[in-house]
Amino acid sequence: MLAVDSQFQLANWQIVALAHFSLYLVTKFPTMKKFIALAFAIIISANLSATNTLNLMPYPSNVKVGVGKFTVDRNLRISMQGQYNSRLTPNVGRFVQRLSKRTTITLDRDTIISNQANATFEIKVNRPGPVTRGYDERYRLVIDSTRITLTAETELGALHGLETILQLLDRNDKGFFLPAIEINDTPRFAWRGLMIDACRHFIPVDIVKHNIDAMAMVKLNVLHWHLSEDQGFRIECKTFPKLHQMGSNGEYYTQQEVKEVIAYAAERGIRVMPEFDIPGHAAAWMVGYPKLSSGPDTNRIEKYFGGFRPTLNPTEKYTYKFLKKFFKEMCALFPDEYMHIGGDENNGLQWNENPKIQAFMKKNNIANNNELQVYFNAKVLDIITKNGKKMMGWDEIFQPTLPKNIVIHSWRGREYMEQAAKKGYQSVLSAGFYIDLFRPASNHYLNDPLPADTILTDTERKLILGGEATMWAELTNYETEDMRIWPRTAAIAERLWSPGNINDVDDMYRRMAITSMQLEETGLTHIKNREMMMRRLCNTYDVEPLRILLDAVEPREGYKRHGSKPRYTTESPLSRAVDIALPDAPDAVNFRLILKSYLQNRDQASYLQLTELLNQWALCYGRVSNLVANNAALQEVLPLASNLTQMANIAQLLLPMIQSGKTITAEEATQIKDQIKELAKPVAEMEEVVGESIGIMVEALKVK
Amino acid sequence: MLAVDSQFQLANWQIVALAHFSLYLVTKFPTMKKFIALAFAIIISANLSATNTLNLMPYPSNVKVGVGKFTVDRNLRISMQGQYNSRLTPNVGRFVQRLSKRTTITLDRDTIISNQANATFEIKVNRPGPVTRGYDERYRLVIDSTRITLTAETELGALHGLETILQLLDRNDKGFFLPAIEINDTPRFAWRGLMIDACRHFIPVDIVKHNIDAMAMVKLNVLHWHLSEDQGFRIECKTFPKLHQMGSNGEYYTQQEVKEVIAYAAERGIRVMPEFDIPGHAAAWMVGYPKLSSGPDTNRIEKYFGGFRPTLNPTEKYTYKFLKKFFKEMCALFPDEYMHIGGDENNGLQWNENPKIQAFMKKNNIANNNELQVYFNAKVLDIITKNGKKMMGWDEIFQPTLPKNIVIHSWRGREYMEQAAKKGYQSVLSAGFYIDLFRPASNHYLNDPLPADTILTDTERKLILGGEATMWAELTNYETEDMRIWPRTAAIAERLWSPGNINDVDDMYRRMAITSMQLEETGLTHIKNREMMMRRLCNTYDVEPLRILLDAVEPREGYKRHGSKPRYTTESPLSRAVDIALPDAPDAVNFRLILKSYLQNRDQASYLQLTELLNQWALCYGRVSNLVANNAALQEVLPLASNLTQMANIAQLLLPMIQSGKTITAEEATQIKDQIKELAKPVAEMEEVVGESIGIMVEALKVK
Repeated sequence: MLAVDSQFQLANWQIVALAHFSLYLVTKFPTMKKFIALAFAIIISANLSATNTLNLMPYPSNVKVGVGKFTVDRNLRISMQGQYNSRLTPNVGRFVQRLSKRTTITLDRDTIISNQANATFEIKVNRPGPVTRGYDERYRLVIDSTRITLTAETELGALHGLETILQLLDRNDKGFFLPAIEINDTPRFAWRGLMIDACRHFIPVDIVKHNIDAMAMVKLNVLHWHLSEDQGFRIECKTFPKLHQMGSNGEYYTQQEVKEVIAYAAERGIRVMPEFDIPGHAAAWMVGYPKLSSGPDTNRIEKYFGGFRPTLNPTEKYTYKFLKKFFKEMCALFPDEYMHIGGDENNGLQWNENPKIQAFMKKNNIANNNELQVYFNAKVLDIITKNGKKMMGWDEIFQPTLPKNIVIHSWRGREYMEQAAKKGYQSVLSAGFYIDLFRPASNHYLNDPLPADTILTDTERKLILGGEATMWAELTNYETEDMRIWPRTAAIAERLWSPGNINDVDDMYRRMAITSMQLEETGLTHIKNREMMMRRLCNTYDVEPLRILLDAVEPREGYKRHGSKPRYTTESPLSRAVDIALPDAPDAVNFRLILKSYLQNRDQASYLQLTELLNQWALCYGRVSNLVANNAALQEVLPLASNLTQMANIAQLLLPMIQSGKTITAEEATQIKDQIKELAKPVAEMEEVVGESIGIMVEALKVK
Repeated sequence: MLAVDSQFQLANWQIVALAHFSLYLVTKFPTMKKFIALAFAIIISANLSATNTLNLMPYPSNVKVGVGKFTVDRNLRISMQGQYNSRLTPNVGRFVQRLSKRTTITLDRDTIISNQANATFEIKVNRPGPVTRGYDERYRLVIDSTRITLTAETELGALHGLETILQLLDRNDKGFFLPAIEINDTPRFAWRGLMIDACRHFIPVDIVKHNIDAMAMVKLNVLHWHLSEDQGFRIECKTFPKLHQMGSNGEYYTQQEVKEVIAYAAERGIRVMPEFDIPGHAAAWMVGYPKLSSGPDTNRIEKYFGGFRPTLNPTEKYTYKFLKKFFKEMCALFPDEYMHIGGDENNGLQWNENPKIQAFMKKNNIANNNELQVYFNAKVLDIITKNGKKMMGWDEIFQPTLPKNIVIHSWRGREYMEQAAKKGYQSVLSAGFYIDLFRPASNHYLNDPLPADTILTDTERKLILGGEATMWAELTNYETEDMRIWPRTAAIAERLWSPGNINDVDDMYRRMAITSMQLEETGLTHIKNREMMMRRLCNTYDVEPLRILLDAVEPREGYKRHGSKPRYTTESPLSRAVDIALPDAPDAVNFRLILKSYLQNRDQASYLQLTELLNQWALCYGRVSNLVANNAALQEVLPLASNLTQMANIAQLLLPMIQSGKTITAEEATQIKDQIKELAKPVAEMEEVVGESIGIMVEALKVK
């Protein structure tokens, strides 16, 4: 029976050493990881090449796999037919370029031809598609051994079809091909967005642009651009230039850049909706224009995060005069029919403390701050409407006197969205899509805005326009932005595009890994910046020990990282180990999946794969010790490596016991679980997640 | 004695297996590479942390290492004193940010203070530095345990000093520090450039910008921007808009972008000199303005590479009227005092065949095409001069009637530069700095414009202004541009900055590896894009077998790749294995260095390291076979892997023979060398370079 005591570690080492190969060998060749990686790679490669398992993401609404394949070679000839917006041409150009890069086949300017008769790939479009809410995005793709036919009502559907073709591309030793297939695809929700917060940390234009390319790859269609905050006013304002000049650290988008981004997005079928968050979250406005403030607080660009006092004054004419001019300029700059006015998290402190505001409320029978904000919103709505726009705002703006064409953006919970729908209001869901919270992709993937058991009626369901992944940027900057958005946003994109019954988490992870690699074609740095940041942190090229550690652990979820000392500010470097840890620790996820398979099948292959991963983790502490020996920046991860190694040691002992059919008592199980719990305590803002799998092993051993 | 026969490979495997560890183990753990990498990493880490070996690049002209160290922590306080241009402030800001990222210490806005008395790091500047040729770039850096003092005549020297400090940053387990030191540094040459050819392939603005940052890191000070070519006219021209509209595929720099790049460079102390290559290399001009042409050829943007017929007509008034307006616009746009007019490789065919031109030459006593180009150049010089600029051009423009303030840009050989100097003309050397030729860094590093045995007198030497690394872009594009420029350009930067006697190749490679990693701070993709491109090519995350192969081989040198079929065009994808192979194959370089050490010392450590590398290569063929099995894009590398494995097999046999003191006859040596020669034949535009080291092993075995 198992003795959980101080000899545990040694006993474990000995058992593993005897069971598989000598400790001598393990010590001599400390890098078993790659062997495992190789085994996985073979599995992945097999998947990539399997024609019976499509790697599409988001998965189309209707797919029929045929027989045969279309060979992709330098004889490819593409023709475009019908009435389409000119954006189709550059997209076909990029399609050809990506195909060429992947296949290494030169597909030159002659690939696109005008003569339909000679085409092997025909694109047919009925009418130009405006990039507005609810445009027709359907497409039909038919591939047989001689021909590709892509049909769409608007070229915007055709763009989606081009992405699907690139996801279908397969290869063998002779060449590249597409499987014979018939796809009829239509999105489940019309509003599929990504919000980029460019305020907490500024996100440079080129990063915004390659995120737009990535959005197009997974069929998202709304870029929600969060442009003003306590921590920065991030867009050039010609009417009130002190907004960007004094309200930012010099990092803001010029109007020229904004126009470029809008055009760039429109070319890819993506709307750009700006957000100017008022009356709260607006400290940066008041640095240049202190008259906007409701209180006597010193106005400054906030460097800390959280809620702050500065709030626009809703009782002064100056405020509305200002907003009238401001929105006139911004509504003209952004062609989208929606203007997002934020409206969230007004703490009301300045309003409470300002006697003039209190007097105003009394005089106008405004009972509380909520009602005062309703009063403010009505004024803002009037301004927005007069500029030809519809208003959108976070949950808090909702109240039933607003016109029905506004859109509620639910962030506090699905119930707010449902309440709004019950009252006849449209909404977009972001609760459950907060990708800044370091939650695994599966969590967001299963967050269906309209689950099978929704409380909404058919009519009410139509008011749920879709959802948005929200990338708040307190703990991300230009180096990690892509890594925090992708690949998890691909899972959200699928949730918003594909039918609700496409919800197999394991298959989603399989496809997401492939999609993630393809997303690199956009210039996205979500994979490559991780190694770069490890090199900087480790101060050497060989970052493998750190990678092994970080591939097994995850950043603390939710807002727990904000509890750290010293407090995070906009100037924190965000270059620590936790900044490279991923919300889906890849090796921990693998371990969990293989364990699941092993417990079902008791097969040797899974057993050996588990053993290899455990051996790698068992050696982690020693290898990380060497790596961090002379490196102050990495000292903090040593206890984390120690915990991982100790957990692996426990699992190394449990695994052969499961294999040989041994059992443990409930008491022993509790003892081990307590030990795991202790080892799983957060270190350096990261958490061990292998412990969950060990818990499953313990359960498997327990006398029933 | 050695029998070179068909049994060779088997015998070799057996010997290795017996000598070191069983073949079973090698097969079971095919990834020995990482073990070696780890061993190297320890060596590198040791170097990174060694205070007695400075990692400075370019190495300063005068260094005195002191005793003690300055601790870098959040108490750092920086003050700037004296008269300086405002560019100093943002540079100090970036300095603080980079320091913060590397150390993971938050150094916020309070780090920069105005009160000199409280500063721990004082920057003193005498006067603002104009970013023009020959500005004062000297700096003096004194660091003791309590204080950093950086003194410079202009802030441009101070910028160099900031880079030196970042290169001095060291760490241990307790924290970060700078060694006590006194550096007095001054550049050897005033003109230290990088030429970016944005024409053969367009290089987007953000790539140009991060290359400017990288230039600043290694103290280069001229960006030479090659903006017009047969394959594209890459800048917006307001006077003649058909130049960029019809002369490019839509990829060109707007004037707004050009202004941004100039300002970006100036902020970093870097001049931007444009080149408009005339009268040859000008096909793209004539697509929109066919009247400029000297012949009846169809005008088109060239997609092939090489020399082409279209040449400006030097006998028509239209040409000069055009150039007058054109240069007026461009001279106003670019503030630099130099305008580069190209002037190279005019094949003269259109001139020969045009009867009007021939008549003109006869009438004006112009004997040949050379003289006609002299005539043309004189006219252009007049235009350039009237716009307040000095003229620069490639070798071919040189002739002794030109004014002495022009600059000859030598590309054909150092002798052209010397000839010009002998006649009193200034020049800049690019011959030997052609980084497009896939030559190793050592080759460029030892290319001293003024070697100890120069034929030039002291006065003539002063006419050698410096040099430029030239990145012609036939075989590179946005994905590989950084990888082709860096890190080799750091070696050229050192050649142009440091004293001529700083020329130890091994130490250069050691420091270049460290500098290369630091260069990633600019956003440069020279390291990270390689893995991304391997993932795309391998269609899987585990690219290790391909990496092992590519780390041992090099692209064919010179212009040999242009001999391939199908011919390269501007539309070739440049996504093949050869596009990721490096001019300094890292593992082959390591093997050479370790072998050198082993042959000198016959030490076991080196012996084992060599063995590990050979084992890894011996397994390469098998591993690559698995990787390429279903991948048409990689089939071409299989014979290369086979050759590498066979070479390793030979070396695996030779190494124990050297160790045990065996000898071979001259005849046997020839046999082996012939075999190596056969295996070293180019495959897929790449070459085996391990063969050179094996040749050295054979020599070591030969009976003397």
